[in-house]
Amino acid sequence: MRFSISEAEYKTRIERVRKVLQRRNLDALYLTNTTSIFYLTGYSFISTERPAALVIPLDGKITFMGPKLEENHVPLKTRLIDTVRTYFDYPGEKHPIEHFAEFLKEMGLAKKRIGIDNKAGATSMYGYKGPPITRKLPEAKFVNMADLVPKMRLIKSSAEISMIRESAKWANLAVSLLQEYTTEGSWDVEVALAASWDASSIMKRALGEEFEPLRGIFPIFAGFRGQIGEMSAIPHAIGTRRRIKSGDVIIAEAGVEIGGYSCELERTMIVGKPSAKQRRCFEVMLKAQEAAIQKIREGVECSEVDKASMGVFKKANLMHLMRHHTGHGLGLEGHEPPWLDVGNREKLRAGMVVSCEPGIYETGFAGFRHSDTVLVTKDGCELLTYYPRDIETLTII
Amino acid sequence: MRFSISEAEYKTRIERVRKVLQRRNLDALYLTNTTSIFYLTGYSFISTERPAALVIPLDGKITFMGPKLEENHVPLKTRLIDTVRTYFDYPGEKHPIEHFAEFLKEMGLAKKRIGIDNKAGATSMYGYKGPPITRKLPEAKFVNMADLVPKMRLIKSSAEISMIRESAKWANLAVSLLQEYTTEGSWDVEVALAASWDASSIMKRALGEEFEPLRGIFPIFAGFRGQIGEMSAIPHAIGTRRRIKSGDVIIAEAGVEIGGYSCELERTMIVGKPSAKQRRCFEVMLKAQEAAIQKIREGVECSEVDKASMGVFKKANLMHLMRHHTGHGLGLEGHEPPWLDVGNREKLRAGMVVSCEPGIYETGFAGFRHSDTVLVTKDGCELLTYYPRDIETLTII
Repeated sequence: MRFSISEAEYKTRIERVRKVLQRRNLDALYLTNTTSIFYLTGYSFISTERPAALVIPLDGKITFMGPKLEENHVPLKTRLIDTVRTYFDYPGEKHPIEHFAEFLKEMGLAKKRIGIDNKAGATSMYGYKGPPITRKLPEAKFVNMADLVPKMRLIKSSAEISMIRESAKWANLAVSLLQEYTTEGSWDVEVALAASWDASSIMKRALGEEFEPLRGIFPIFAGFRGQIGEMSAIPHAIGTRRRIKSGDVIIAEAGVEIGGYSCELERTMIVGKPSAKQRRCFEVMLKAQEAAIQKIREGVECSEVDKASMGVFKKANLMHLMRHHTGHGLGLEGHEPPWLDVGNREKLRAGMVVSCEPGIYETGFAGFRHSDTVLVTKDGCELLTYYPRDIETLTII
Repeated sequence: MRFSISEAEYKTRIERVRKVLQRRNLDALYLTNTTSIFYLTGYSFISTERPAALVIPLDGKITFMGPKLEENHVPLKTRLIDTVRTYFDYPGEKHPIEHFAEFLKEMGLAKKRIGIDNKAGATSMYGYKGPPITRKLPEAKFVNMADLVPKMRLIKSSAEISMIRESAKWANLAVSLLQEYTTEGSWDVEVALAASWDASSIMKRALGEEFEPLRGIFPIFAGFRGQIGEMSAIPHAIGTRRRIKSGDVIIAEAGVEIGGYSCELERTMIVGKPSAKQRRCFEVMLKAQEAAIQKIREGVECSEVDKASMGVFKKANLMHLMRHHTGHGLGLEGHEPPWLDVGNREKLRAGMVVSCEPGIYETGFAGFRHSDTVLVTKDGCELLTYYPRDIETLTII
């Protein structure tokens, strides 16, 4: 079993890019977005202040330009990149962007039409400074192609769906361990790390020597992200001070990287016997998620899915507790288009993969949100995550 | 004991910003950089496709503009933000940037001079799209102030240095656990998670109820990042497939977030009795690090520090194995200015905190790099990290 996208599929993706270049009368594509570079080549690297870019000429060698420290990394991870050109380090005696301009000249691109995803020519992190590449090649014509790769990523191939399916298995294990290890008096970070450790160790034994994390250092993230008790009412909580106690609503989540892809799985759990108010909020949230899932199918507007969950919250007079829309695309990134948002008139298409996670949050009390990973199909949808969603199973006694 | 920067210090930082605004004849500062926002207010949030910004008027209420899901998070984490203005979600029926333009108008800034760190008015993640805020307020005058907060961050206060010192203690524990838990046959990810778990749990017990991670979900990261055996020759390895075996050079590292700050601690370790070649590379690396540390003091050019380690590698005829410069600033971010780079003529100043980590890497064999966190002082420097650096201690038998 392979736990990465095949070289053949990467080649097909590159061919699709080259067809667009041809159609748009472009001589090359210049990419700085690390997700786009991974999507086309399977090569992943740690993005820092050091500029890096992939250049795909219409004809000619696919070239990675980056810092010296990536030089020997590239061929270990991909065969789709033909050439690696490097500068020693940033800022350097000569600025990396000056090097990049020279590399492009040597590739014969100095006066050509170049599609680019970022006119700076470098991602801008950690206080990076530099002139835009466009200024260093004044005779080239740069054309904004920031949308090209993200658009290709919208519809998942069967191989991509397999990766997400595999991810869902191990996310299921990780969430089951989170539930099992949660006890009164434990700090959520401890439970998270224990579950992440055990799930990672078991997964590696099951998948064997071939398996490795490609993009993240830890292949499994399982945890609560601070969503404990009253902090569960903060959808994007980060940490919390206090330990878990009886009566807490907690939100458990897991992501697992397989071949660069991850599902999203989140479950609201209740520590101890649920109160009537907890039970009511939980049931309304579940109904909203059901209503949204029922809506998902090819041809439906994204806004309709958001409206379906809103309809349930409105009917229950809990609309004032909604804090975010119903979901988002996912796959290579934690969030990606399409947005299941009332303002998004885009239509769902078969092969899109989205989270479905309507939630309600009462400040000072608790938050209630499940998140499942849903594959859009012609006739409806399929839930790729499958951990139980009912309050009985999710009660920790 | 407090494990965060005091409110008084945050207020002083804001006052410094306002003095600059006054001097530059600006009416407000508009920030999208999450590190800058944290630096000035202590408020941290998960950055996504949803636009968010902090507005500091010269006079008037400090305002956070962001998605609804952050609304109740802000007052739980800081008292330095007076007002929170939100839109429901992205993309929304009305684009968030339209909301932001209205909020700015209501703040009386429609025709004013506004310093800004990013003319888009939003960080651009996860496929975010939107018009730049500058276009939505055509009568305002926007002035690039991207450098203002990063420059303030260059010299660390005594409180900041205390945070990094505290971080170094727990990083020392974490690296000692990595060393203790490393055994032949284990997968680096397992050792990493076991050490991260135990170190986090022990730290929480020691620091008590007041301690919480402010910016990252896990307060401790301890691991090897795939730098195992021949993969240790890849400075920015991410993952590796195989398990640890005797004869491996491995590079262990830990970062620990205290009040938003972290040290950097990395150690080259050898599993089993070091070979003559391993020993030689290790000793040269150590000598290079020593030479660089000896150079660090106020008034010295950053380039001189890089040249000092290069000098050692050259003398040992191993310069061809160098893959990156000697170090970088750190504190709130993993990497930040100043760069200890041969091309950087900037002078070190007392209160700067830098990593010192010259390394050598032979493809197919191994890599050798220690990293220590070094405080620049008037007379020299102080190592804030203190895990043993000698090959005897770092040999795992």
